Amino acid sequence: MTDTAPTDAEAACFEAGIKFGSLYHQFAGTPVSPDSADSVATAMEEAIENQPHCRAVEVDVREDELAAAIADGGADYTELTGRFLEVEIVIDYEGCEVVARMEMEDGYPLMRLESVEGRSS
Amino acid sequence: MTDTAPTDAEAACFEAGIKFGSLYHQFAGTPVSPDSADSVATAMEEAIENQPHCRAVEVDVREDELAAAIADGGADYTELTGRFLEVEIVIDYEGCEVVARMEMEDGYPLMRLESVEGRSS
Amino acid sequence: MTDTAPTDAEAACFEAGIKFGSLYHQFAGTPVSPDSADSVATAMEEAIENQPHCRAVEVDVREDELAAAIADGGADYTELTGRFLEVEIVIDYEGCEVVARMEMEDGYPLMRLESVEGRSS
Amino acid sequence: MTDTAPTDAEAACFEAGIKFGSLYHQFAGTPVSPDSADSVATAMEEAIENQPHCRAVEVDVREDELAAAIADGGADYTELTGRFLEVEIVIDYEGCEVVARMEMEDGYPLMRLESVEGRSS
Repeated sequence: MTDTAPTDAEAACFEAGIKFGSLYHQFAGTPVSPDSADSVATAMEEAIENQPHCRAVEVDVREDELAAAIADGGADYTELTGRFLEVEIVIDYEGCEVVARMEMEDGYPLMRLESVEGRSS
Repeated sequence: MTDTAPTDAEAACFEAGIKFGSLYHQFAGTPVSPDSADSVATAMEEAIENQPHCRAVEVDVREDELAAAIADGGADYTELTGRFLEVEIVIDYEGCEVVARMEMEDGYPLMRLESVEGRSS
Repeated sequence: MTDTAPTDAEAACFEAGIKFGSLYHQFAGTPVSPDSADSVATAMEEAIENQPHCRAVEVDVREDELAAAIADGGADYTELTGRFLEVEIVIDYEGCEVVARMEMEDGYPLMRLESVEGRSS
Repeated sequence: MTDTAPTDAEAACFEAGIKFGSLYHQFAGTPVSPDSADSVATAMEEAIENQPHCRAVEVDVREDELAAAIADGGADYTELTGRFLEVEIVIDYEGCEVVARMEMEDGYPLMRLESVEGRSS
């Protein structure tokens, strides 16, 4: 018989995914400039840390990329999107710790699991 | 030595979580009425099915709950939020199939994994 | 004495602006492909038409622009943003009819009032 | 002949509306608790102040209302929505100054124009 019930480690990874999807789709599109980048990064961290099983969120705005995009456009701000962000999220669920990251890879903001610790044997 | 590299099944669960967080935080807050409920449900399904590894999304609007909330308020529409939704998402990642659901539990819209199939042994 | 109370026409223009800001920031960031473009356009129209004083919303997705952006990227979908959209909104507020549009101008999605009718004299 | 071209004051009111719709639909749904309320309020202010013709944005979170909603629910945070917010936005467009506010009225978060100054005569 095959057991299809999720393990704690799988549930921890599901929780990590929820946080990434939430963070991205809540804040993508926010008007952002170099002067306002810190406040949106802080708001993203503190908002998502409210969610269950979320131990830590760290958001870095890639300021050079942001400044370059604004220099290319016609306005003095742009819309927040994945290429301006690097994010690390740590989940703690029933003793499993999951670290997940979003960063640019081949020109695309990729979300991926970095490590899963505390699987029951 | 402990291996902390994520399994395919864990990555599939991470992908399922991303889809739920995306769906919820992209569309929560949308003005919705009984007449417009079908169009937002269809848009949610088709939008999230664009995302990688997402085989199927089914969104049901709880129309009785929606009608009751509108009757209680002062307007003829309200904002889309979790208590008006039931969602099922199926992920297919490297041969692992994950089914996840969002539905109300104790008055709170709970996202959870339902089944994980195809783990490598 | 200067009267600073808003006129009905000014209030109608304020309502038109609310609808544009709502439409844009609710739906920007939605995963979109040529196949799902119609459903998100319909959802945008029906959602915003729920809002008060909103007589009509018409959303056209610029499919050529969308296809070109997807061909340039590494995925088979992209995120909805202003350069893929043309929108017309008609407001009716206390007998004033306002028509407003969003369309690309100099590479930037510009929202502007097109006409204001029914000002009291 | 009737002139349907918008006046500068009407355009200023349209701009005020855009800012309110943007602010509301960008940030509604954000997970919020008493501890994170300040950071989301600051992010909202700084984000919207990036937009054209926007001189000032002031966001106050109604902390008593927020605490009461959290006490009623099953979690230690909730979703940001209009009943937790008071917002004032000042627009300056071609010499016209518009002040607009959002606050609760009859249990509903109402956006309204407060004053329009600098109409050309």
